[in-house]
Amino acid sequence: MNENIDFAVIDSERGGRTGYPEAVYCAGKTDEQAEAIIVRMREAGIPVFATRAGAPLAARVAERFPEALYDEISRVLSIGSAKSPAVGLVAVVCAGTSDLYAAREALLAAEFFGSEAVLISDVGVAGIHRLFARLNDIKKANAVVVAAGMEGALPSVVAGLVSVPVIALPTSVGYGASFGGLSALLGMLNSCAPGVAVVNIDNGFGAGYLANQINRAAR
Amino acid sequence: MNENIDFAVIDSERGGRTGYPEAVYCAGKTDEQAEAIIVRMREAGIPVFATRAGAPLAARVAERFPEALYDEISRVLSIGSAKSPAVGLVAVVCAGTSDLYAAREALLAAEFFGSEAVLISDVGVAGIHRLFARLNDIKKANAVVVAAGMEGALPSVVAGLVSVPVIALPTSVGYGASFGGLSALLGMLNSCAPGVAVVNIDNGFGAGYLANQINRAAR
Amino acid sequence: MNENIDFAVIDSERGGRTGYPEAVYCAGKTDEQAEAIIVRMREAGIPVFATRAGAPLAARVAERFPEALYDEISRVLSIGSAKSPAVGLVAVVCAGTSDLYAAREALLAAEFFGSEAVLISDVGVAGIHRLFARLNDIKKANAVVVAAGMEGALPSVVAGLVSVPVIALPTSVGYGASFGGLSALLGMLNSCAPGVAVVNIDNGFGAGYLANQINRAAR
Amino acid sequence: MNENIDFAVIDSERGGRTGYPEAVYCAGKTDEQAEAIIVRMREAGIPVFATRAGAPLAARVAERFPEALYDEISRVLSIGSAKSPAVGLVAVVCAGTSDLYAAREALLAAEFFGSEAVLISDVGVAGIHRLFARLNDIKKANAVVVAAGMEGALPSVVAGLVSVPVIALPTSVGYGASFGGLSALLGMLNSCAPGVAVVNIDNGFGAGYLANQINRAAR
Amino acid sequence: MNENIDFAVIDSERGGRTGYPEAVYCAGKTDEQAEAIIVRMREAGIPVFATRAGAPLAARVAERFPEALYDEISRVLSIGSAKSPAVGLVAVVCAGTSDLYAAREALLAAEFFGSEAVLISDVGVAGIHRLFARLNDIKKANAVVVAAGMEGALPSVVAGLVSVPVIALPTSVGYGASFGGLSALLGMLNSCAPGVAVVNIDNGFGAGYLANQINRAAR
Amino acid sequence: MNENIDFAVIDSERGGRTGYPEAVYCAGKTDEQAEAIIVRMREAGIPVFATRAGAPLAARVAERFPEALYDEISRVLSIGSAKSPAVGLVAVVCAGTSDLYAAREALLAAEFFGSEAVLISDVGVAGIHRLFARLNDIKKANAVVVAAGMEGALPSVVAGLVSVPVIALPTSVGYGASFGGLSALLGMLNSCAPGVAVVNIDNGFGAGYLANQINRAAR
Amino acid sequence: MNENIDFAVIDSERGGRTGYPEAVYCAGKTDEQAEAIIVRMREAGIPVFATRAGAPLAARVAERFPEALYDEISRVLSIGSAKSPAVGLVAVVCAGTSDLYAAREALLAAEFFGSEAVLISDVGVAGIHRLFARLNDIKKANAVVVAAGMEGALPSVVAGLVSVPVIALPTSVGYGASFGGLSALLGMLNSCAPGVAVVNIDNGFGAGYLANQINRAAR
Amino acid sequence: MNENIDFAVIDSERGGRTGYPEAVYCAGKTDEQAEAIIVRMREAGIPVFATRAGAPLAARVAERFPEALYDEISRVLSIGSAKSPAVGLVAVVCAGTSDLYAAREALLAAEFFGSEAVLISDVGVAGIHRLFARLNDIKKANAVVVAAGMEGALPSVVAGLVSVPVIALPTSVGYGASFGGLSALLGMLNSCAPGVAVVNIDNGFGAGYLANQINRAAR
Repeated sequence: MNENIDFAVIDSERGGRTGYPEAVYCAGKTDEQAEAIIVRMREAGIPVFATRAGAPLAARVAERFPEALYDEISRVLSIGSAKSPAVGLVAVVCAGTSDLYAAREALLAAEFFGSEAVLISDVGVAGIHRLFARLNDIKKANAVVVAAGMEGALPSVVAGLVSVPVIALPTSVGYGASFGGLSALLGMLNSCAPGVAVVNIDNGFGAGYLANQINRAAR
Repeated sequence: MNENIDFAVIDSERGGRTGYPEAVYCAGKTDEQAEAIIVRMREAGIPVFATRAGAPLAARVAERFPEALYDEISRVLSIGSAKSPAVGLVAVVCAGTSDLYAAREALLAAEFFGSEAVLISDVGVAGIHRLFARLNDIKKANAVVVAAGMEGALPSVVAGLVSVPVIALPTSVGYGASFGGLSALLGMLNSCAPGVAVVNIDNGFGAGYLANQINRAAR
Repeated sequence: MNENIDFAVIDSERGGRTGYPEAVYCAGKTDEQAEAIIVRMREAGIPVFATRAGAPLAARVAERFPEALYDEISRVLSIGSAKSPAVGLVAVVCAGTSDLYAAREALLAAEFFGSEAVLISDVGVAGIHRLFARLNDIKKANAVVVAAGMEGALPSVVAGLVSVPVIALPTSVGYGASFGGLSALLGMLNSCAPGVAVVNIDNGFGAGYLANQINRAAR
Repeated sequence: MNENIDFAVIDSERGGRTGYPEAVYCAGKTDEQAEAIIVRMREAGIPVFATRAGAPLAARVAERFPEALYDEISRVLSIGSAKSPAVGLVAVVCAGTSDLYAAREALLAAEFFGSEAVLISDVGVAGIHRLFARLNDIKKANAVVVAAGMEGALPSVVAGLVSVPVIALPTSVGYGASFGGLSALLGMLNSCAPGVAVVNIDNGFGAGYLANQINRAAR
Repeated sequence: MNENIDFAVIDSERGGRTGYPEAVYCAGKTDEQAEAIIVRMREAGIPVFATRAGAPLAARVAERFPEALYDEISRVLSIGSAKSPAVGLVAVVCAGTSDLYAAREALLAAEFFGSEAVLISDVGVAGIHRLFARLNDIKKANAVVVAAGMEGALPSVVAGLVSVPVIALPTSVGYGASFGGLSALLGMLNSCAPGVAVVNIDNGFGAGYLANQINRAAR
Repeated sequence: MNENIDFAVIDSERGGRTGYPEAVYCAGKTDEQAEAIIVRMREAGIPVFATRAGAPLAARVAERFPEALYDEISRVLSIGSAKSPAVGLVAVVCAGTSDLYAAREALLAAEFFGSEAVLISDVGVAGIHRLFARLNDIKKANAVVVAAGMEGALPSVVAGLVSVPVIALPTSVGYGASFGGLSALLGMLNSCAPGVAVVNIDNGFGAGYLANQINRAAR
Repeated sequence: MNENIDFAVIDSERGGRTGYPEAVYCAGKTDEQAEAIIVRMREAGIPVFATRAGAPLAARVAERFPEALYDEISRVLSIGSAKSPAVGLVAVVCAGTSDLYAAREALLAAEFFGSEAVLISDVGVAGIHRLFARLNDIKKANAVVVAAGMEGALPSVVAGLVSVPVIALPTSVGYGASFGGLSALLGMLNSCAPGVAVVNIDNGFGAGYLANQINRAAR
Repeated sequence: MNENIDFAVIDSERGGRTGYPEAVYCAGKTDEQAEAIIVRMREAGIPVFATRAGAPLAARVAERFPEALYDEISRVLSIGSAKSPAVGLVAVVCAGTSDLYAAREALLAAEFFGSEAVLISDVGVAGIHRLFARLNDIKKANAVVVAAGMEGALPSVVAGLVSVPVIALPTSVGYGASFGGLSALLGMLNSCAPGVAVVNIDNGFGAGYLANQINRAAR
């Protein structure tokens, strides 16, 4: 048994219990620790979705698992997928270029769990006509993720226009009084539009996971 | 036309646009203002769900609309219901007696929009065996609302045990370093369990609304 | 000389120096103190704009100065006006009924200083079509004040649609994580749209004053 | 079409809608992304104002567009100007040497949009006689930007002395309890002097943009 | 021995140890508790300086000690004085009428400990010419207390003009983003002018005590 | 005498006064300063427990004291042990791999002071069945340390299951709204379960020290 | 069965599981709700310790249970005691008169669970000689609770003088920048002295409970 | 005239106005800018006290001005002294080794302005007997600076023992919930002992300047 893996208990029964395997959060782990966990998961036949994975870790893992996929913008590293494809769509809406990293993490998570997903970017509140131009695409989804760092009200606007749940994903992008995403988070929590719930700042995985749950359950 | 209503534009088309009518948030409105809005909505044939309604407002409204229902604990005042009954269940889980006001607001909102809903109270983290005793009931739901003021990790625990979305509802109950619900909110946002999203502190309406959306869409 | 007035130095030359008289901020002053200041200003021929004036103060002042005007919603008490009427319009946009108190303070301040001003209420972000329906009215103004408590991005939306300065006025309306207007304030500061500046929470006077300055200077 | 630009939608009609082109915020973008956006804007004939541009980006852009100008202190990179020259002056007042970076961003933004602008530096509150020495210059402007990191009351002082709008620009300069500009921001919001509005910490572009709007509209 | 006094240990030797008796902070004490402490101090021959004393307590104490003095604005209740009169002056400068309560507490504390003290009110930063008009009076003092709630930079301005220590006294006056005096406190801490130190929000006693210490020690 | 040691007073009598020697906190000290303190302690015959020790310091110290032990994960450097072995057990419970650094600091501190200690890792709230699987081990301890960064309620859960004191140790692990451990800290303070007390974020030494005190005193 | 008690599940097995019954937190409960819980507990033979109990509730309960004890200062209402008397002492140290309410709650909780307990009041840091005068009494205890609102370092001082665990109990007493106990809480968490752990602001029950646990386990 | 100096206005008359020259705050300035200011000051015959000066700047300045003194711990660079030596002593008290950098800045500032000053280090609250051992030295001073990062109550303790003003200097040393000095700052502001005032976190210069003012004025 791998000595380095002593610290981490692989929850190989989680799939049975909740229907979904766990993700690997790579920040704060050494590349050795993260790789050991991934190897162990693959040995147990568990598909892998690793977030905050640096390029060096991706390179190490790719040597051993050539089928691994790595997305540089979101730093998501994945092997396999957790579910058979589902009917229905998840839409990921993104206020600005700078929010792409979180939006793509949500997109890839939704896809990993079997949902079809589409990314609609650069449709911020300050240029709201861009949002309207894409509204028909958004309305096809069973759940919508809205990622924004400096435009905390974008989820409100979207939720006022669609009838499905909106998952608000605050990002840590911004400067000055954005306070690492706190301002966006507060704006989203104070949304007047019902049908909006919020995940942690930069938690693209959680947003995509939840959107997928809603989508898969939908008729 | 009622002069007092000039300040408020009844969005009578919202039902058509998003599928759901608006709620009336009574705090910060005089009883006259709130009543005028309710009357106008009824004249337009819109069902009413009013939150933070005081007993005097409830009494005024009951005189005019005897069919109005008032729940003292949550201070919800409602007339009619917004949707035909749906198949499927929403579960509302509540950590302590003190969180009941928010949990019941969520419960009533889910019911108002047509979902069957069940309340499971006093199942906090510090006495976790109580939660396990009710787990089978919770697992029947298509969406779970978890209300807690001093036990920010309760949604995490629940989400680790079920496979449906969990809506975390922080309440402003607590003392000392609870900061009016902020500590619970932060705990919920930092949940390690995926499948959790958070609404604003004390926003039972938003939690119930979202749980209903998920429930109604579910197969 | 009135003994009660010793604590306050009437700046009777301010009109000459900046072109505008001072306002009287009544909160934290006894009615006696506030009245004494108002009397002194009238004796010096200075027009009066008093904010946070309670109804009892308004009644006292009305006995002595029947020409005084009192607005219950904003609690503004005024006598006379500071400037001759100006050409050009100030628009005050208001997200919800609950924000009216601050919006009207801004409206009355702009009018007190000579601007024509129009109030456009209940046009929040979550029902953005209401905003578009009033856009032509808004576009006629030389400066726009946008008051909102739970919809911090409304000024962004407006600023993306007009070419004149937008003064964002956060209000202390809200609950949960609104923190007495702080969330709205942060949302407004983080606006992506240029052409927006922010005044203090509930500072309707400051917003109206500034909008008037811009309007009066405009061609 | 450039593949790298897929993430960003150039709002080429913004000029028509609001009268002003967008700025490019380079922080959080790779040099490749920023350059692609700039190239696209130039292809569409849009003048460029890019903030937080590093020297390497400036060098890349200069190779392709020799007419590009780069200011090392403010890290502003610009090509062309957005407007024909306007009559009237914008004054940018700066408390200390350390605030120059933000003050110059405001200065260059005002000039980019056609205003004549003047920088008056090192006139902080603790040495207030320096401010009075420059007051005549400040009084010639139609709008004044005041940048300060440790002297949150400087805008108040200036606004008490002039009759035109003052745009307060908090900077992130300082140490200890300055909290990255938050203390300055709060001080500026609490200003007793009317006629002051505040932009986000370090948002020199926003301050200059707004000052230009006011100046161009002025008679 | 009075049973109610068991909770409080009168430090009758403090006068010998530090040269000054303790003050009685009445907030959070019942009138019975406060009165018992005062009686005990008088029995021990200790002069009394009680802060946050309500009018009912003052009335009770006046019955027993007719020589007691009560100041309604600052709610200071005092009996006797702690020191023989000192040579030299303490100046207390006050930004606005609303700050008077704290300024007077400082004034009375300085006098209680033997300093001559003068109050200079309503000389805020936004009307800085008023401050200059009183500068000669201020310059006579050996220590200056500056009380302000919305003008956190006033101590900076004063410290830039005098050569003696400035004690900054933030007050809890204000609204919006003043956060109960926190904004003023931060502004004062970030003062660029050396020679300024800050006491707790509304701690007029502490400010006056310290100013007196400096004054008494001065040549 | 060593010149570098002038700044630090070795409290060689502390062992006699409180029964325990001091620890050396290496962060913010140069390696020279830390080494000098350690050498001085060894010369006085005091055992050493140094926290936040970097690998270079460990290497320097190992050259001079080959018996020194260094733990890379917790960065604890120790020489000798402070107490004779005690009867009884301390359990250290750890939510995730990322919290190991703090948990191990607590473990090593408890051992340094003579307690037997056991580490039980990766038993977070979101997978609560893992915790139950280890409950018998935890129940053998006289005191339990619970380290967690993103699962602030884990101490509550544990305290609801055992009858001995629980020391909650928040870690700075996390992202988004975890605010460097603040969210975990608040969650732990708001625990509904009695029998929980909290130490500072990342203060593994303090947690282990306190758990040892309780363990050694136990029958 | 009492209808009002439906919301609360009496955990009658808790005594068996953890060795201690639950306390009743009365804030946020109506007197009817609190009384119903107390009656139910008595019917199940469970001793009662109720915190934040108002005088009217105490009067109601006293009518039904004449053996009930009520402490006005701490607002603790108790019936019976949870444990047979233990050997060993708990000391409760209190900085000022204003902190008595929390200190007494801790004292009564320790006694309720069987410990002998002693209260040592008015021994703050600013008059540290008073603390030394009582040191011998404090040193007899197996655990020390230190309650303070404005003197966050008092637990540090005590922990530097004794060899047993110190439970720091921040109180919400104070003004200005005390922020409802937050400043004291932070001061206690940052204590340099090991052997200190902190409970929530005003959580006297938790502090007394924990001190009792430590005391009962001690030899 | 030096082109680089355009941004900074040397206040050569400040000495006459307040009796003291300005200090140079080097953080946020390039070495070129800082050197230019220093050269200009020397040309005007002004003594130099520069804070936050890096070693490279010190080396540059030493080449041109061999009489410059540089202190590595506090990073103070000085040339000449501002005042003739004064009678009387300033004491600088320092809780721990880690606080030395700020304490030495205060020490050097007091000496620069002519006071004799003495540093008393490593006398924290948790080992309060060390403080008492040095009390006689401290009592000789006319003003005491107390620097501490993790022991916010140390100034309280000192002020309870001496009769002269205590300047509390919070440092940014610490970890966890120390928040960069904020916890120490709050603790110092909440000090119960009168005779304490606080300067900004790490503002050793300000503390020393003020202590010198008090000392020089003392008899």
